[in-house]
Amino acid sequence: MGGSSFGRILRLATFGESHGRALGLILDGVPAGLDLGGEDIQKELDRRRPGQSPLSSPRQETDRVELCSGIFEGKTTGAPLGMIVYNQDARSGDYENIKDKFRPGHADYGWFKKFGLRDYRGGGRSSGRETLARVAAGAVAKKLLGRRGVVITAYTQRAAGISCGAFDPGEIEKNPLRAPDAQAAALMADRIEALMARGDSAGGIVECRVRGLPPGLGEPVFDKLDAQLAKAVLSIGGVKGIEFGEGFAAADLTGSQNNDPMDEKGFLSNHAGGVLGGISTGGELFFRAAVKPTASIALPQTTRDSQGRKVSLAIAGRHDPCLCPRVAVVVEAMTALVLEDFFLLQAARGGFPQN
Amino acid sequence: MGGSSFGRILRLATFGESHGRALGLILDGVPAGLDLGGEDIQKELDRRRPGQSPLSSPRQETDRVELCSGIFEGKTTGAPLGMIVYNQDARSGDYENIKDKFRPGHADYGWFKKFGLRDYRGGGRSSGRETLARVAAGAVAKKLLGRRGVVITAYTQRAAGISCGAFDPGEIEKNPLRAPDAQAAALMADRIEALMARGDSAGGIVECRVRGLPPGLGEPVFDKLDAQLAKAVLSIGGVKGIEFGEGFAAADLTGSQNNDPMDEKGFLSNHAGGVLGGISTGGELFFRAAVKPTASIALPQTTRDSQGRKVSLAIAGRHDPCLCPRVAVVVEAMTALVLEDFFLLQAARGGFPQN
Amino acid sequence: MGGSSFGRILRLATFGESHGRALGLILDGVPAGLDLGGEDIQKELDRRRPGQSPLSSPRQETDRVELCSGIFEGKTTGAPLGMIVYNQDARSGDYENIKDKFRPGHADYGWFKKFGLRDYRGGGRSSGRETLARVAAGAVAKKLLGRRGVVITAYTQRAAGISCGAFDPGEIEKNPLRAPDAQAAALMADRIEALMARGDSAGGIVECRVRGLPPGLGEPVFDKLDAQLAKAVLSIGGVKGIEFGEGFAAADLTGSQNNDPMDEKGFLSNHAGGVLGGISTGGELFFRAAVKPTASIALPQTTRDSQGRKVSLAIAGRHDPCLCPRVAVVVEAMTALVLEDFFLLQAARGGFPQN
Amino acid sequence: MGGSSFGRILRLATFGESHGRALGLILDGVPAGLDLGGEDIQKELDRRRPGQSPLSSPRQETDRVELCSGIFEGKTTGAPLGMIVYNQDARSGDYENIKDKFRPGHADYGWFKKFGLRDYRGGGRSSGRETLARVAAGAVAKKLLGRRGVVITAYTQRAAGISCGAFDPGEIEKNPLRAPDAQAAALMADRIEALMARGDSAGGIVECRVRGLPPGLGEPVFDKLDAQLAKAVLSIGGVKGIEFGEGFAAADLTGSQNNDPMDEKGFLSNHAGGVLGGISTGGELFFRAAVKPTASIALPQTTRDSQGRKVSLAIAGRHDPCLCPRVAVVVEAMTALVLEDFFLLQAARGGFPQN
Repeated sequence: MGGSSFGRILRLATFGESHGRALGLILDGVPAGLDLGGEDIQKELDRRRPGQSPLSSPRQETDRVELCSGIFEGKTTGAPLGMIVYNQDARSGDYENIKDKFRPGHADYGWFKKFGLRDYRGGGRSSGRETLARVAAGAVAKKLLGRRGVVITAYTQRAAGISCGAFDPGEIEKNPLRAPDAQAAALMADRIEALMARGDSAGGIVECRVRGLPPGLGEPVFDKLDAQLAKAVLSIGGVKGIEFGEGFAAADLTGSQNNDPMDEKGFLSNHAGGVLGGISTGGELFFRAAVKPTASIALPQTTRDSQGRKVSLAIAGRHDPCLCPRVAVVVEAMTALVLEDFFLLQAARGGFPQN
Repeated sequence: MGGSSFGRILRLATFGESHGRALGLILDGVPAGLDLGGEDIQKELDRRRPGQSPLSSPRQETDRVELCSGIFEGKTTGAPLGMIVYNQDARSGDYENIKDKFRPGHADYGWFKKFGLRDYRGGGRSSGRETLARVAAGAVAKKLLGRRGVVITAYTQRAAGISCGAFDPGEIEKNPLRAPDAQAAALMADRIEALMARGDSAGGIVECRVRGLPPGLGEPVFDKLDAQLAKAVLSIGGVKGIEFGEGFAAADLTGSQNNDPMDEKGFLSNHAGGVLGGISTGGELFFRAAVKPTASIALPQTTRDSQGRKVSLAIAGRHDPCLCPRVAVVVEAMTALVLEDFFLLQAARGGFPQN
Repeated sequence: MGGSSFGRILRLATFGESHGRALGLILDGVPAGLDLGGEDIQKELDRRRPGQSPLSSPRQETDRVELCSGIFEGKTTGAPLGMIVYNQDARSGDYENIKDKFRPGHADYGWFKKFGLRDYRGGGRSSGRETLARVAAGAVAKKLLGRRGVVITAYTQRAAGISCGAFDPGEIEKNPLRAPDAQAAALMADRIEALMARGDSAGGIVECRVRGLPPGLGEPVFDKLDAQLAKAVLSIGGVKGIEFGEGFAAADLTGSQNNDPMDEKGFLSNHAGGVLGGISTGGELFFRAAVKPTASIALPQTTRDSQGRKVSLAIAGRHDPCLCPRVAVVVEAMTALVLEDFFLLQAARGGFPQN
Repeated sequence: MGGSSFGRILRLATFGESHGRALGLILDGVPAGLDLGGEDIQKELDRRRPGQSPLSSPRQETDRVELCSGIFEGKTTGAPLGMIVYNQDARSGDYENIKDKFRPGHADYGWFKKFGLRDYRGGGRSSGRETLARVAAGAVAKKLLGRRGVVITAYTQRAAGISCGAFDPGEIEKNPLRAPDAQAAALMADRIEALMARGDSAGGIVECRVRGLPPGLGEPVFDKLDAQLAKAVLSIGGVKGIEFGEGFAAADLTGSQNNDPMDEKGFLSNHAGGVLGGISTGGELFFRAAVKPTASIALPQTTRDSQGRKVSLAIAGRHDPCLCPRVAVVVEAMTALVLEDFFLLQAARGGFPQN
């Protein structure tokens, strides 16, 4: 109940700090008989790994995952998967100067007030480094969803004030922004580099599309499909908002504009973003997440120390100047965990009815 | 696990359909010794009740709550509160013509695909009428929060394309829009009535402000304060998005613009909306919810029947032309449940440290 | 989290006190499409009802259940079942003399120390009357299990020092002891009446047998089949122990005596009681529960009042002189809830493999 | 939801197989500020470690625990504790001959029917080796309880037909039986060695006593103190029964014999074993667990292979001839986890009232 577990049937628990000995996870509820190896996990961790471009933190981590349990002769056994990743390049010395200061835009102050102490080395447990465990678990969920024909794609739609005009899924993994429009990606990179040079950072928008969902996924009332996804996505550090389909734009539409009519072949539009009344419609699931600009910046900022004195702070450290490309990977992982969990819940209901 | 329960320490389970015999709830985990009577609950239910203005459904329901357990000599005993509200004005006949048709913008199609059958009378369990149980439970949470000095205010900030310019909290309960700006409320009402006259409906934005929260509320990683609130608010029918503080606008800011500096006296701005890294900052908690236009409209729409044929549908029934004023009441209730639950979790952690 | 909910997929929440307005429950996670009516519930409640023989409490309660939701046209819809039973014959006056005294053998003292106040009328929430909600929910679970060919039979094996020699299942519902041996039942009744006449009460042993379980039911490690059943059965007031198969007798056996060998046709013995390593073997599930003598007795006892003074107490009220016959009904209900829940969990795992 | 997690506020998840790469756990919900180091955990693991006497498995495991997270400068931070223990002496070759045979008295057959495949090396996840993770987590719970003055002592009361006559707590850790009576321990050892020499094994009874509990611990209805303990203890492999206080003996008592009277100073007897109505009384908590004889024996047994053929099986491997001494350590750990969890739940209720 300390906040580090997620899911109902497919149940994830995670541990680990930015500068501790190791990070890891337990994923329980994985059905027996899935072909799975460490490389399935590693592949996704490598997508999330820092140090891969001038636009991500230069911290050097190989992030090698050890898959410790739940596998026998190359298949899952139905027992929990335990995984561990040891930290390598944890330069705690970098954090001596913030030891006693609350970094603006970070969890520092609130955590200190909550716990009475804090692990100041890179944010400790509140660091984005914890998302490594989410991505590892998400890799398993993605593989399970793959068997169902469900494909999740998250990408940077907007960053530093530049939006993508085109949507070319094949482009996403080719540029460091993880943007589906090469030209926009280049512009974003320029702007972000300019901001970095000034000691500043950029925000943006991550979009997620899911194809292959049947109608009928989700649960009534409190555990709606969009409600669970909202929790999952807002639990990612730096995300400040989420919207489905038309989202905030629906506020200015009328019912006749926003409703999605149907005919014999299905829905004629998808203003809803693939979810109505908390249950999937069978259309493409579509949502957008607002990502704030990276809080750790080199520009001097006014803040407070733990004695309550006003102080100035310039953050050295090694930070991504824009979180979007890595948030996109984590959004995919969390979405996969949520969706597979709903499929398993539906199985507990007897599966989808034939009608 | 069927989706109808919510919360961890303060645990709510609800039941009931729009046109069934009764709706009700069990709220467990309420501390012993709280002064509580049926009137505390009734007061909030009356705020949510239909039939109160031309802008809400004319369905006549007294929504009298019976508080059946958990109270002895005017105080809570620590045992679960059971509450029941019998339906009075359930004209199921109104729904004969939609019996076999999927209403656009509603959960009908997804529910049919999920369960293989559906209670077509007013949407059954997927009706907004289920929020009655949320409001009843929220009344208890609000009373518990009142003892802590926490005050929650939700209101219609925008509807039918009109935004409030002023923020006068005293105005909110005086107009049927529940808007904090009398003038804007009058304009909204005019537009909505015009839309109604054309058989159409309006969307809008509900905002919520919470004063009196200490820093340190929320849990790490998955159970962040904003993540839980996002789930709570997105679980309300008709809500399609949520954002905290700057929200989607933060996507276009830089770190130096968006970070909230501090000095000896506290935070100098509140772009974060009172939550950083999933933990409250001690500033005002602020979020906005996107509310779609009411799906049930009188204008004829194209849809499908359960045999898969294309059909036309004009919905009679009795519906709110704009959901915002009632969503605001439900947002308050859900916010109260989430916040009190976090306070109780913090108590399990030993309370807030003295530092 | 206040203790009044049970189950994972099939999730029960209950409310209500012995002398409050009503008792009730919400059962969520029931699959759609089950034929169900109030009479299915009522039938089981009638088996549990007081006032049916000289050996049960003379309190007159009709215990009429209202099934308020989750049913449409005679079938479950997949939405939660809400049920309520109003109290009729609640003579709170009977409890004036114990208002301030802690009844020996009851929860009174512990509850007062836990909650700081107590509803003294018949024990309030700690009364055995709460089991009414368990039996109502269990009726649904039994019906679901019936479709799977699973049959649960619980009965009084021993009471007031008399054991059953014969096992005639057809006899169980014919005598007030719910014993499968008519002769033993008559002897038990005599002894219990003699104890009653002296103002005293009797304990006993309830046994439970389940036929029709497949091998493979249960979950590893913490959620073993026998562990969940142990929790379920020990949660019934008055139960002080449980044992599976040989149980405590196994302590004195050797491995070669206690192991159940197999051949082509299956197990050759069932010392295990149908569960090994927490998973069902496919043999008859068998366990025994120790039931203490009713705590409320007319004989004067030494106790304490809430001012800490030593006082004498003779309990009038209306109480069962031996709890076994009613505990048996509740054991069946709890066992049904546990087993159906495990079946649904197995469905979430993809059902039983074909091998 | 795969069975490998336990607890509500203090939440444990575990992973690992007998012959896999490693075992481990995540313990979340631990309050910040507890002095804790690896040696606190190691101390308890060493008590459980095999290879320490002729009466325990000769498998050589150092069972060195790595504490990977949740600690900063020697204190818990409020973040989850991650721990890992690598397997060293995993001779999977020992299991080639059982690869295809279901061992009598083991989970083999049920697991195969549940999962469709099985890790036959030492029972995989169903091996008693998983209790290592319980003991590591229990070490933390014990330390938390130590701050509250609560002391848990579990020991072998009976083994191979010999009961302890004396109760000398100081003796428990001095003999390999973990029995509180040196003389009885010597007799037990003789008998067990004789059984071993014949290729057989012994059962026994483990008792547990808890001093220092306040009255008022536990939760109403389903989450009773004894119900949770029953689940916890029955989840330990080899345990077939549990009883509190008089337990099964209470079945033959009358109310006047079994009730515990009170006077000004407190309870005058403790037939209840320290728990009434699921809530602690403040007296010594006392329960007994029935431990079956070790299932793995060298004597040839009749069983079945996965093709359904009758076969003979003699189990080589390395096994404890009597489980009691190690079960006692695990009982302490599980009891500690249950009790500390209830204390934290009570804190969420506002702590114990002053009355």
